[in-house]
Amino acid sequence: MVTGAMAAPCVVGVDMGGTKLLAGALDENLNVHHRAHRDMRGLDQEALLDAVVAAVEEVRAAAEASVDAVGFGIPCTIDQTRGMAVQAVNLPLADVPFRDLMVERLGLPAFVDNDANAAALAEHRFGAARGTRHSVTLTVGTGIGGGLVLDDRLYRGSVGAGAELGHMVVEMDGPPCQGNCPNRGCLEAVASGTALAREAREAAERAPDSELGRAAASGHEVTGALVTELAHDGDEVSREVLALIGRRIGVGISSLVNVFNPEAVVVGGGVMGAGDLLLEPARAEVAWRALRPQRDLVRILPARFGAEAGMVGAAALVFDELARTA
Amino acid sequence: MVTGAMAAPCVVGVDMGGTKLLAGALDENLNVHHRAHRDMRGLDQEALLDAVVAAVEEVRAAAEASVDAVGFGIPCTIDQTRGMAVQAVNLPLADVPFRDLMVERLGLPAFVDNDANAAALAEHRFGAARGTRHSVTLTVGTGIGGGLVLDDRLYRGSVGAGAELGHMVVEMDGPPCQGNCPNRGCLEAVASGTALAREAREAAERAPDSELGRAAASGHEVTGALVTELAHDGDEVSREVLALIGRRIGVGISSLVNVFNPEAVVVGGGVMGAGDLLLEPARAEVAWRALRPQRDLVRILPARFGAEAGMVGAAALVFDELARTA
Repeated sequence: MVTGAMAAPCVVGVDMGGTKLLAGALDENLNVHHRAHRDMRGLDQEALLDAVVAAVEEVRAAAEASVDAVGFGIPCTIDQTRGMAVQAVNLPLADVPFRDLMVERLGLPAFVDNDANAAALAEHRFGAARGTRHSVTLTVGTGIGGGLVLDDRLYRGSVGAGAELGHMVVEMDGPPCQGNCPNRGCLEAVASGTALAREAREAAERAPDSELGRAAASGHEVTGALVTELAHDGDEVSREVLALIGRRIGVGISSLVNVFNPEAVVVGGGVMGAGDLLLEPARAEVAWRALRPQRDLVRILPARFGAEAGMVGAAALVFDELARTA
Repeated sequence: MVTGAMAAPCVVGVDMGGTKLLAGALDENLNVHHRAHRDMRGLDQEALLDAVVAAVEEVRAAAEASVDAVGFGIPCTIDQTRGMAVQAVNLPLADVPFRDLMVERLGLPAFVDNDANAAALAEHRFGAARGTRHSVTLTVGTGIGGGLVLDDRLYRGSVGAGAELGHMVVEMDGPPCQGNCPNRGCLEAVASGTALAREAREAAERAPDSELGRAAASGHEVTGALVTELAHDGDEVSREVLALIGRRIGVGISSLVNVFNPEAVVVGGGVMGAGDLLLEPARAEVAWRALRPQRDLVRILPARFGAEAGMVGAAALVFDELARTA
């Protein structure tokens, strides 16, 4: 793998979303030099693995530098002892020896982790939580992912399946969770983008004269993005829906503040288009719920990395691993 | 402090309960050589500090070996950066520079931590979770304390106030929590010994013909201990109350399993007199709620150390700190 005495390290980071894949070549400052995209919808497992390999090879061919290793962020529980993708909600991956398959097909060192762990590491090393020793990141999109950086290291648990922060129970007899989660009343079940859209549909029905109600009646699909747009335009009903979800996110953050006493909690993912319309109610909830002194010491911050958080994080993961084993 | 070339290490461990203090001299295998007790009820802050100092001096005088250091387990949020007892529920300690006061008055190195952290360390190093790298301990008594040993080290958070596992929210619009906790629907609010007694009183009223109902009607105070005794004797109503509390503890454990992916969750504290009448419903809850693979990998175990867990843990804490700084 020696490419010349002074070659700058270059790695490929891959974010494997449920609908699309994003791969990039990144240097050690996490600057992105090349990108490749793939549509992941409707693929079976074999076609998915082929698409992943092709995207990595595309980026590798475009990179000026020789690629040292590749990192994957996958929305999946991972068994790090064997590099297994154990159980994915939105991808056809179940008990797949993903790391070994990629090493074999790419001929490169490969590292895999949960996509939310990857995003948390990116925020901790280079993003909103830079400079802290203990940070917790929630990625709120269709589901809610989590990542923990404790004492400056990604915390994964005994086999790497930990940090499923979206699957803390906040309402023990609450609604069923989604995907492969068998639980009820998880934070994800009541405060994800999916829950936001559900609450918004109900609010539109209750308030047909609101902007949200009129948009729904005129045939607009009621999504988190629509609610956010109408809320920014001043629609009170939309703002109330975001505040409801924000308060629930705040319930989850209160538990995390009590459990981790972190310097920072970072909130990212698709719903953060709503910004402070979501974060301010969350902060207010933490202010009355969480214990002293940790509630007075924590900052609750929007993520720095948006749609590229998973890819940047997958690269950060590789640099961490290379540094650890250097 | 040199007491002879071959002197075996000896430390004093102090468990400061809300009603009583237990101090002991312990060797590095955590064998207890001397004990001192104090009643802590009704003391103001000054009298409490005097009682603590007197108990430590009593043990120190009785120990054959010279005492190297003293450790305190306090039911209190701690700021480790300053050794402060920030906020105690059942003791007159608020923003007290406890560590420095003890160093000054005892002339010994002193270490303070939350009593549940101390108990968790004892279980991890010498108790039910011995041999694991990641263990979570819940201490369920009047309240619910927690301790986290992650990657073989006690996890405290940024200033040492973390691991308040009893103050994870499991029912976001649930009953108010107790003591100084401003929250609602904490695990402690619905699954502590206090909640057990409350549920038992209500069950006794609903079922006056049960053994529990008859005991209550005849003037017995309905406590966790009474419910446990009647349940062991076969009273179905008492067993149902314990199962209800056990299931709620299982809700909390499910979140902990998803978040930490630990090898072991240890449950201790006064309610564990009920043993499997409490733990089996908890395990059943985790079996359907928690995610794979972590739910299949975790053992849910009764604590090894009973009433002396806090004292033993306070000593374990000192040995850890002495080893770390050696």
